[in-house]
Amino acid sequence: MADNRFFKISGPFILSELADRIGAEIHDPKDADRSFVDVSPLNTAGPEELSFLDNSKYVKDFIGTKAGGCIIHPSNIHRARPGLALLVTDNPYKSYALAAQAFYPLQKPKPQISEHALIQSNSSIGNECRIEAGAIISEGVKIGDRCHIESNAVISAYVEVGDDCFVGSCATLSYCMIGNRVRIYQGARIGQDGFGFSPAPDGHTKVPQLGRVIIEDDCEIGANTCVDRGSGPDTVIGQGTWLDNLIQIGHNVKIGRGCVMAGQSGISGSSEIGDFVFIGGQAAISGHIKIGDGAKIVGKSGIIRDIPPGLTFGGIPGVPVREWHRQTTMLSHLIKDGKKIK
Amino acid sequence: MADNRFFKISGPFILSELADRIGAEIHDPKDADRSFVDVSPLNTAGPEELSFLDNSKYVKDFIGTKAGGCIIHPSNIHRARPGLALLVTDNPYKSYALAAQAFYPLQKPKPQISEHALIQSNSSIGNECRIEAGAIISEGVKIGDRCHIESNAVISAYVEVGDDCFVGSCATLSYCMIGNRVRIYQGARIGQDGFGFSPAPDGHTKVPQLGRVIIEDDCEIGANTCVDRGSGPDTVIGQGTWLDNLIQIGHNVKIGRGCVMAGQSGISGSSEIGDFVFIGGQAAISGHIKIGDGAKIVGKSGIIRDIPPGLTFGGIPGVPVREWHRQTTMLSHLIKDGKKIK
Amino acid sequence: MADNRFFKISGPFILSELADRIGAEIHDPKDADRSFVDVSPLNTAGPEELSFLDNSKYVKDFIGTKAGGCIIHPSNIHRARPGLALLVTDNPYKSYALAAQAFYPLQKPKPQISEHALIQSNSSIGNECRIEAGAIISEGVKIGDRCHIESNAVISAYVEVGDDCFVGSCATLSYCMIGNRVRIYQGARIGQDGFGFSPAPDGHTKVPQLGRVIIEDDCEIGANTCVDRGSGPDTVIGQGTWLDNLIQIGHNVKIGRGCVMAGQSGISGSSEIGDFVFIGGQAAISGHIKIGDGAKIVGKSGIIRDIPPGLTFGGIPGVPVREWHRQTTMLSHLIKDGKKIK
Repeated sequence: MADNRFFKISGPFILSELADRIGAEIHDPKDADRSFVDVSPLNTAGPEELSFLDNSKYVKDFIGTKAGGCIIHPSNIHRARPGLALLVTDNPYKSYALAAQAFYPLQKPKPQISEHALIQSNSSIGNECRIEAGAIISEGVKIGDRCHIESNAVISAYVEVGDDCFVGSCATLSYCMIGNRVRIYQGARIGQDGFGFSPAPDGHTKVPQLGRVIIEDDCEIGANTCVDRGSGPDTVIGQGTWLDNLIQIGHNVKIGRGCVMAGQSGISGSSEIGDFVFIGGQAAISGHIKIGDGAKIVGKSGIIRDIPPGLTFGGIPGVPVREWHRQTTMLSHLIKDGKKIK
Repeated sequence: MADNRFFKISGPFILSELADRIGAEIHDPKDADRSFVDVSPLNTAGPEELSFLDNSKYVKDFIGTKAGGCIIHPSNIHRARPGLALLVTDNPYKSYALAAQAFYPLQKPKPQISEHALIQSNSSIGNECRIEAGAIISEGVKIGDRCHIESNAVISAYVEVGDDCFVGSCATLSYCMIGNRVRIYQGARIGQDGFGFSPAPDGHTKVPQLGRVIIEDDCEIGANTCVDRGSGPDTVIGQGTWLDNLIQIGHNVKIGRGCVMAGQSGISGSSEIGDFVFIGGQAAISGHIKIGDGAKIVGKSGIIRDIPPGLTFGGIPGVPVREWHRQTTMLSHLIKDGKKIK
Repeated sequence: MADNRFFKISGPFILSELADRIGAEIHDPKDADRSFVDVSPLNTAGPEELSFLDNSKYVKDFIGTKAGGCIIHPSNIHRARPGLALLVTDNPYKSYALAAQAFYPLQKPKPQISEHALIQSNSSIGNECRIEAGAIISEGVKIGDRCHIESNAVISAYVEVGDDCFVGSCATLSYCMIGNRVRIYQGARIGQDGFGFSPAPDGHTKVPQLGRVIIEDDCEIGANTCVDRGSGPDTVIGQGTWLDNLIQIGHNVKIGRGCVMAGQSGISGSSEIGDFVFIGGQAAISGHIKIGDGAKIVGKSGIIRDIPPGLTFGGIPGVPVREWHRQTTMLSHLIKDGKKIK
């Protein structure tokens, strides 16, 4: 069970109610009234707790689980131990997400403007906001309703933030427009100067960075991630795109809708990323290139050319993923052959 | 046009005045008195706006631009549409930087010491500084003239900062000496302990980190970049060197003058980098090695040996860039041959 | 000598006292009463200063050093210049660490609760703590004795911190339990949401992150490093593990005791790292895998499969390090052969 100092639990729920909420079928109708008090991982769940199986690496844990119920894909029904209540769905992870949200509803911030926050008089704060001690809201800033601005966050002049947004402690926002339901985690840096200059041995000449950062609705920006503002055009993070921690987004980058970038990846200036693109951890995308809709980029790869829609690329420099796998297989064969010849 | 909530525009300027300021020649003297109100990218500029062509990827945009004027290299004159006023120069990007600076002068901070900043009484602040709310200036700190310290930045005891410096929100400075005209962006970490210890299974033994960080004049340190202080010697960032975001500089590293490091690159402890070295994004340089003046390091490469002056290295481990290109070409040929044989 | 504005020096010490403190033997008993005033690197030390030789790259500096004394391995005795006092030990770097600690004792913070810190009334602060201006201690927080919380750090509700801990400026702690003698550097992010969601083109579904971060005794967490809290299980950093700067630790990761991770490395969600594992700079470890006790991972490698205890892996994807070296050697031979054939 989650530490109740940090997390407030709801429930209990009976299985039929959970099934409705999470879009799953009860496998055995006799289980419909069984009561569940919590969600828990397969290897720690008890008889009144609900778990889930999504990643096949955990089939063993599923077979041995002491959970009372489990959310699973139809293909795993035959592996269930007798007595385990099953909620069956094509997307167990999504259903688990919704079950966990049932027990632990995403909480609205308790409205309160701390007397220790500094809010410039010509800024505008919406209804039911929570603004914590040490937060700085500069002149001309507009903040929507039900926003939560944590301690020591800094929102610079004329920034606009929509409704239902979260800005974590020590995050800094400048030269940017933020949509609704955007979550910006601790220490994220939004809107600072892009890295634009004309280099020369006798001194680099700074190019004024005259664009903004636009973050559309429903985005997440991870802790200590940096999004530089545009040099003229804006830098844009499209609707529903989620960035993990410690990511670098260069100036003028356009990211489409619903993309996912894993930790420590980066995109150099002026590149364009389509919709629903997945970028693995520590991957890098060069500047001035285009990544098509639905493309996938393997973690740690380095992409230096355009990727057509829907393809998966890996390697340094990045190539279609099958080609990259053949390269690595070939290399390991070659060194075995090399040893034989010796 | 840049968002006028964030950016104040100057001008208009006639072409001859711009030509003087940016070191370019007017191609057709009849254009000398044409008036320009702003700078803008090729694909969005209008008839009273000035654009530029530097990267050949944008030649198409140049051919179709509706800009009134454009800064270009002599080799592109023949591609210009009739009526387009041309400012011709060998370095269009530098000239564009100067034109943008004409329209959007780099602004001096409005002098003001916030009553919500905490400035210890035995620190010293120069003339015409701007120190914002929540900034902490500790005991013994010396800050020069015309510095801008943003909200919630922390400058620890006895740090010295020169004239005309910028320290972004939530940046932290300790055990360091900062030159003139240095820009330290949001969340940068300067001067914390280097990662020095003698490891052992029964507990690592900490090596006291007794050096400082020296940042010479005219440097830029990007957002969330970390520069550890030396272990005995100082860590040094040479004059005019620019670091992008999320970079790691280990203890005792010496970087020369005019270097450029792109985002998420890193240098391990005690390595020495010459003058005017370029290091690509996500590249890594091992500890205790030397990189010669004018060397270039390809993004994502891993350098584990010294690089002589002027050479370009790429790959993991890094080799001369031609060799690395041959390696990747060879690999892609091999897998094609492999397929044929099958 | 270390800058005395930043560092307070102890001593002088005679060689026999230093030998006792650092676990080394005096090579020539006649040197026992020689007095030393400071530690210093080989190339800058003077006749009253003590230096050390650990990395063989610095043998030349050792031969030419003007230091009065030097800590060395027995194998280097024959290289010493006449008159150089020698402290001989099997672990010169550890002995140097202890010598430097003798001259520059790790300082306890001067107890003081700043009137400009915000400490919620229902939190609990131990004895002899130093809590600086702008620090935020939220409701229900418990902090042990002799802790040092720097300016503008934020400790969120119900977090517990043990005795003798350091929390650097602008670091943020939430949903976490911190042991004793833990050092968390500037801008580190501990306890924010893990990157957990079920992705879909019509919107990602957030998985509530219901675990905590547990940091055991004697850990170091580097500047701007991020440790996400667990999704259900906790994220755990084992006793005595040291993380460098800009590291990403995903949710549910378990790291054992005494591990070392160099800068900009990362571990994806739910992976398990054994005891005393070394991970090089910019290395990445995929999610849901296991790294055995005592394994070593070469910098910049990408590990996608389990590593048995004690082995060293390198490359992308990671393979046993000898295999990786053969791969890179093979490639460089192939391109030479390729040239000959042409």
